[in-house]
Amino acid sequence: MEIQVVKHVLDANLTVANQNREKFRRHGVFVVNVMSSPGSGKTTLLEKTLTRLASELRAAIIVGDVSTTHDAERLARSGAPVVQVNTDAFGGDCHLAAHVIAGALDSFDLSRLDLLIIENVGNLVCPAEFDIGEDAKAVVLSVTEGEDKPVKYPLMFRVCDVAVLNKIDLLPYLEYDRDAAVAYIHQVHDGMPIFELSAKTEQGMEAWLGWLREQVARKRSK
Amino acid sequence: MEIQVVKHVLDANLTVANQNREKFRRHGVFVVNVMSSPGSGKTTLLEKTLTRLASELRAAIIVGDVSTTHDAERLARSGAPVVQVNTDAFGGDCHLAAHVIAGALDSFDLSRLDLLIIENVGNLVCPAEFDIGEDAKAVVLSVTEGEDKPVKYPLMFRVCDVAVLNKIDLLPYLEYDRDAAVAYIHQVHDGMPIFELSAKTEQGMEAWLGWLREQVARKRSK
Repeated sequence: MEIQVVKHVLDANLTVANQNREKFRRHGVFVVNVMSSPGSGKTTLLEKTLTRLASELRAAIIVGDVSTTHDAERLARSGAPVVQVNTDAFGGDCHLAAHVIAGALDSFDLSRLDLLIIENVGNLVCPAEFDIGEDAKAVVLSVTEGEDKPVKYPLMFRVCDVAVLNKIDLLPYLEYDRDAAVAYIHQVHDGMPIFELSAKTEQGMEAWLGWLREQVARKRSK
Repeated sequence: MEIQVVKHVLDANLTVANQNREKFRRHGVFVVNVMSSPGSGKTTLLEKTLTRLASELRAAIIVGDVSTTHDAERLARSGAPVVQVNTDAFGGDCHLAAHVIAGALDSFDLSRLDLLIIENVGNLVCPAEFDIGEDAKAVVLSVTEGEDKPVKYPLMFRVCDVAVLNKIDLLPYLEYDRDAAVAYIHQVHDGMPIFELSAKTEQGMEAWLGWLREQVARKRSK
């Protein structure tokens, strides 16, 4: 019975996700759903991403948290429009659902955007199941979390298009096997592009930014 | 409607949790449910905990993951009996539910145990809602995750009895405000005991082990 219920919730979610998707298509805005555990450095990554793309792309961000507006305050420093969603208002949901995004879209003029980033609730499990109408999904993993998270949380790595390995500035202080980490990712998602970077020092950021630029250009030309 | 369904699932879970609790009471075994994000160092903490308590307490562990038996293999090195539960078999659940624990209990002779540790699925949101019949709940947070997770995931810190701040060996390489971290924890859970330690170097482990010993002794004397 529980499975039937879950199926119903996911079907209802997909209907709204498709409406979001159609809206994004109409306005030619590229939408990326960024997911990770709590504490992977997602917010710092996105703050730096928005700052570095500010002069070339019109970007905005929706940030989801169970509670607080800390992340929105940090992201606002980039100058990009930010909407904070707190799932506390939706029963403390552990993920962003499509209807929550649909509501947040009223805060933006989509016709004036090239890129919309959605920072999901910190959680490596549940958000993987919820389509929100995005063009691409990215998972961020901190190297401090160890190598084997992709095989322990395989759905997340299977559904995401790219992986970011963050906090590589801490590698000298960790027992971390880089080849094993990459092998685990490719074990669950063959050929998955991986961006190894430090959002803090900005080492390795360029490849990630290049990927985003490419996706935005492709979406615009459609 | 969704809220009704969630209530039904939680009520059904509580019935089984109470059966587990009664079983634990009968055998005088102290049960602690250990929760955290993926990559907080839970498994290393528990491996060291079991190894250090091996000569004085009869301990066992149930370890939950969506997928893989990596953690069980690591924990087995301590010599304690280990049962791995994969929630893949239960629809990829993002938490351990009471019936999953009930099933795993068949693998142990509870009358021969003083301490049962349950390592939950890595997730700072969902496991907080599921009572599994435990005596105490502990949350583990890595200092690499930053200071503000307690206010962003308040339910977890509200329901847990103690917090462990792990990976303090990395503090020299992080921008981390220890006083802010403690203040955030106490903002959501006034007076919550906090154990600051490094499972890797074992610095600070003694206070955590002392807390466990005390709980076991208290349960035995009941």
